[in-house]
Amino acid sequence: MVVGVSKGRGWGGSHYLETFKEYGYSGPIYPVNPKYEGEEIQGLKVYGSISSLPDDIPIDLGIVAVPAKFTPQIIEELGQKGVLFAHLFSSGYSELGKEGKLLEQQLLEKAIENHIRILGPNCMGIYNPKGRIGFSHRLSLVSGPVAFISQSGGNANRHAYTGIASGYNFSKIVSLGNQIDLDLLDFLNYFRSDPDTKVITMYVENLKRGGSDFVKLLKETTKEKPVIIWKGGKLNAGHSAVRSHTGGLAGNIKLWKSMAHQTGVILVNNFKELIEMIQTVLVLKIPKNRNTAILTGGGGPAVELTDECEAYGLKIPRITEDGQNKIRDFIPEVNSNLSNPLEFGANGGYPNMIKVMKILGEEPHISTILTTTNPGWYTSEKLTMDEVVKSFANTVSQDSNKNIICLLNISRARKDTIDLIDEFYVKAREYGIMIYDSARAAAISLFRLWNYGKYLESRA
Amino acid sequence: MVVGVSKGRGWGGSHYLETFKEYGYSGPIYPVNPKYEGEEIQGLKVYGSISSLPDDIPIDLGIVAVPAKFTPQIIEELGQKGVLFAHLFSSGYSELGKEGKLLEQQLLEKAIENHIRILGPNCMGIYNPKGRIGFSHRLSLVSGPVAFISQSGGNANRHAYTGIASGYNFSKIVSLGNQIDLDLLDFLNYFRSDPDTKVITMYVENLKRGGSDFVKLLKETTKEKPVIIWKGGKLNAGHSAVRSHTGGLAGNIKLWKSMAHQTGVILVNNFKELIEMIQTVLVLKIPKNRNTAILTGGGGPAVELTDECEAYGLKIPRITEDGQNKIRDFIPEVNSNLSNPLEFGANGGYPNMIKVMKILGEEPHISTILTTTNPGWYTSEKLTMDEVVKSFANTVSQDSNKNIICLLNISRARKDTIDLIDEFYVKAREYGIMIYDSARAAAISLFRLWNYGKYLESRA
Repeated sequence: MVVGVSKGRGWGGSHYLETFKEYGYSGPIYPVNPKYEGEEIQGLKVYGSISSLPDDIPIDLGIVAVPAKFTPQIIEELGQKGVLFAHLFSSGYSELGKEGKLLEQQLLEKAIENHIRILGPNCMGIYNPKGRIGFSHRLSLVSGPVAFISQSGGNANRHAYTGIASGYNFSKIVSLGNQIDLDLLDFLNYFRSDPDTKVITMYVENLKRGGSDFVKLLKETTKEKPVIIWKGGKLNAGHSAVRSHTGGLAGNIKLWKSMAHQTGVILVNNFKELIEMIQTVLVLKIPKNRNTAILTGGGGPAVELTDECEAYGLKIPRITEDGQNKIRDFIPEVNSNLSNPLEFGANGGYPNMIKVMKILGEEPHISTILTTTNPGWYTSEKLTMDEVVKSFANTVSQDSNKNIICLLNISRARKDTIDLIDEFYVKAREYGIMIYDSARAAAISLFRLWNYGKYLESRA
Repeated sequence: MVVGVSKGRGWGGSHYLETFKEYGYSGPIYPVNPKYEGEEIQGLKVYGSISSLPDDIPIDLGIVAVPAKFTPQIIEELGQKGVLFAHLFSSGYSELGKEGKLLEQQLLEKAIENHIRILGPNCMGIYNPKGRIGFSHRLSLVSGPVAFISQSGGNANRHAYTGIASGYNFSKIVSLGNQIDLDLLDFLNYFRSDPDTKVITMYVENLKRGGSDFVKLLKETTKEKPVIIWKGGKLNAGHSAVRSHTGGLAGNIKLWKSMAHQTGVILVNNFKELIEMIQTVLVLKIPKNRNTAILTGGGGPAVELTDECEAYGLKIPRITEDGQNKIRDFIPEVNSNLSNPLEFGANGGYPNMIKVMKILGEEPHISTILTTTNPGWYTSEKLTMDEVVKSFANTVSQDSNKNIICLLNISRARKDTIDLIDEFYVKAREYGIMIYDSARAAAISLFRLWNYGKYLESRA
């Protein structure tokens, strides 16, 4: 049931009516607003008060979108009606200072008195594609392996859209808001045992309680599922931005790094790294080491990739003499370096690429083949994208923990190549090939995945 | 004249015939190959030897694309014909070890004996849109302000294409190769006084001579034009990749950093940073400080931008009380932080954005307004892209040194929005607004521009 609906489309309570209907939510939805009692909004009868709602079906969730000062009273009424769970969209609490802090205390007292749990206030709520509820229009109705807990409604919303565009779906997304009752730890605990969730991800600015409980829970969780945390509010002005955003102190990033080290949490620095890390844990196998073979066209780009990979933690060891000899059998040496990075110059046609990748796939000390070759170059009437990408993937044994990575610089895509790129993305995921837009992105993500594997090994 | 042409299209000598003709090069072109003497290749009569070429017009440039072992003899013949300048495309010299090193010495001796200067060997040569010569198909024929000197043919080629796609054109691009004769310093010296060149950029792996001469020349040059250097080959494997690429040692990156500090050179880490830095010096004014005002939609994204800007050297100081009061006149405080970063939530419509940017433009301590607002959102039947971008640009006084920056995440562009984005790019450049794809890119580039300004001030 939604409290605080209005007649216009758009933000606030009416927005949730719209999205629930758009998703095909199957249960009854009761809009409440005394101003419109008895009228219809979006085809639904509006109730004048919470106490007047029908009693035949228990109400699962109350969504509250009224000015902050009225919310303690609303929570009391919801509790008396037997509602067990309320999401407070309303804002204007501790993020505004002392007075708002007092209002939060009143809210919490009312919640405890009336046996109702609160999500928020100052939050977007929940997106659950299986349950057919959500906070934005046009989100995917397909459930997927990723849970996201966000201390920012803006980031919850961004991630919902970007995740889907990046090839993964969500089990649930929770926007936490000011966490006066249900908090990060509650949801972490929930997702730990949620069978739909394979990867737990978070945007966190600050902890509301229990540093040591959090560490303990993380240690238990990372044994079973990867946990990826993006910590927001790292430096001076960042801190001040956090204070005004969710009314808390940001906490030192050094502490978070040490916590990640202790618990196996994968820490990322920003939204882009979060997206890339999620794709990485979903698509790649945990590598046994950081040793990477680089395949590229020219000497300058080879030097650049090597610089970037090394700067962010990958290793570029020499190919064995045996491997080099096998390659020398069909690639002339002039203008190609056959140790590592491997440059091919004009020799990088399809049959050569596949032959070289197979040789690299058998190099015992190499875990990752990183290539700037775009399989899309080889599609033609004779070879479909499916065939080319599959043949790339098959150059490493599927029961090994070796990975193939393609670098594709897709900033400023061209209209005529977008369809090909999209097809490549879809096929690459299908065959376990990861695409990054830079060596930096590849190196950071792979380093972190390897580091997580090292943590798991140390705890085994 | 081109030595070493063949009948097939594609690489080598014939490639240069194709591109020169494609660009409309107006002088005579003489292909040379004894195998095809008297026949026609690409509509041009093939000569059997250099000595048999016509003597009526002096030959400006000899392009040599024959196997390395024949090149000393060719250089001798070119010299005897009175050719003053040769570009050696041929490879297989010091990049392959001792024997190749000897061959280079022979080449150089022949060049000195016969009064001919050599560019290369192992290089792509020259792209000069005004002179109508170039090393790749479909390059722009428009001359522009950027010179690029590259110790990598691959990077010369990439930059030629990417520069044009990124909104700037070149005065000249030079691919240096092994620099046995003409080297980095010669071309730096040339571009320093080249009236067509406003920005000098380089990809450098190693210096062949004269560290102190280089420093002296850089100091003279940066007083007049910005010099942007991308140093390739920073770490272990990067070094080894350089050795096999152009046959030199890479040199310590710390030395390069200290050299940049002494000379006002803008040092960048990779290709993407190079492109962004060039756009930055072309589009933005040198700011008087690093103080930046961030305008964004939600609290989470505001925290992220602040974190990223601070991590890479920008400052996010508070807006003055006076400025905050002016904004408070029309933006309600709930869900918006009015110090800095500024979050607007649902209040970020066009009229409000323009009003806020004008107030920020008058804040005395702020040099840069960084917004995630995409002017494209406001285009409609009533407002064209030109009008919207112009109104954004006019929020800061055009004779101040204040800048406006827009962040636009355009990785994975959508087919239906590409035209709008392209239009925005064109208009933004026209009105001096810089677009970056991340806060990181904006912060690094702006920090470097400010740092260059600080250097100039210290030398004034």
